[in-house]
Amino acid sequence: MEREHIIKQYDEELKEIRNKILEMGGKVEIMISNSIKALVDRDSDLADRTIASDHEVNHLEVLIDEKCLEVLARRQPAARDLRFITLALKIVTDLERIGDQCGSISSRVKELNEEPPLKPYIDLPRLAESARQMVRESLDAFVRGDEQLAMKVCENDQFVDDLNIQIQRELLTYMIEDPSTIRRAMKLNYISKYLERIADHATNVAEMVIFMVKGKDIRHTTI
Amino acid sequence: MEREHIIKQYDEELKEIRNKILEMGGKVEIMISNSIKALVDRDSDLADRTIASDHEVNHLEVLIDEKCLEVLARRQPAARDLRFITLALKIVTDLERIGDQCGSISSRVKELNEEPPLKPYIDLPRLAESARQMVRESLDAFVRGDEQLAMKVCENDQFVDDLNIQIQRELLTYMIEDPSTIRRAMKLNYISKYLERIADHATNVAEMVIFMVKGKDIRHTTI
Repeated sequence: MEREHIIKQYDEELKEIRNKILEMGGKVEIMISNSIKALVDRDSDLADRTIASDHEVNHLEVLIDEKCLEVLARRQPAARDLRFITLALKIVTDLERIGDQCGSISSRVKELNEEPPLKPYIDLPRLAESARQMVRESLDAFVRGDEQLAMKVCENDQFVDDLNIQIQRELLTYMIEDPSTIRRAMKLNYISKYLERIADHATNVAEMVIFMVKGKDIRHTTI
Repeated sequence: MEREHIIKQYDEELKEIRNKILEMGGKVEIMISNSIKALVDRDSDLADRTIASDHEVNHLEVLIDEKCLEVLARRQPAARDLRFITLALKIVTDLERIGDQCGSISSRVKELNEEPPLKPYIDLPRLAESARQMVRESLDAFVRGDEQLAMKVCENDQFVDDLNIQIQRELLTYMIEDPSTIRRAMKLNYISKYLERIADHATNVAEMVIFMVKGKDIRHTTI
């Protein structure tokens, strides 16, 4: 009975780590959506609120790290559980940096909202939506140990890279035709780059998930 | 005697992780220096070699990760050692991404070397040198558990941020005055951003070192 109790408690702890990571993922997903909504709707208040919400993500990082260390120290997990916890430690770092990037996007958005819009935003919201979905799917793949879904995230990264390059090319034409657009185009360029980095973080997570599932490392090999 | 042998072996394993991280750090330091040397000397061969050397950094990441997992599984370390190993797991991720960024710098350098130079490069090499030194010092702080040095790295990040903004401002004036410089100025801008991100990685490492030394989290609080 005592042993069963310990095992149950241990399962609860792993479940708590899993849930906290999903909670953190949910928060950064909202940050991604809102930072771009703030651009499209020219809503600087929303940009401010997005920046302010980053502290919740940061807080969850510290909390999950501590929980992982505690479980490592007290439960001495082996094999699959050990891999799960070390992966959790790495994933929270990626999620925290995604939060940072949403903060950077929101800062650029606030600056852009001070000036007339350069153009209607079509591709940036598409890019943001793809990046957000990659984050969601990489975490789903993590909690389910779903290798196929993780593979899909890795494949989608190419679409995001291509769309980012297309956006950059288009902005370049604005800048060359009319130098008065340069400052604004540069800021939009940065936003596109930040979104591409968010997708990179999701891809990193997905690659690590495949590592966890397979028990071997596919990072740095061609998929 | 048997117990002593086991302890000695355990110490050796921790030492090996430490040394491999320093080796990895040494490699990314060289990549940082060479990617900018390739720009200043207009040496596209060196840029190619820098890109090629990234696979060594990637290989070390996988190797160190595996070693850490092995020690966690077999030795069940506690307290300080546990914190050391979980930190090692996080640090290699930062180092690997610094390697990626050096690859990105080198790609931009190769493109820039196809065109006439926009201007003499003064500030970018300074920025690269600062970022390289921050990487070095953050790892020194890690292996020595030197909180003061880690604090210094965090403080230096402000200098890098300021220098990056200064470089961006200067490049903007080129672009506005002469749109034919825009493509080149944008690439230099990206290089400056990549270097700033490298310094961010070093700062992240330093913050985690302070966490390890203090046993409490200073991340996301004002230093």
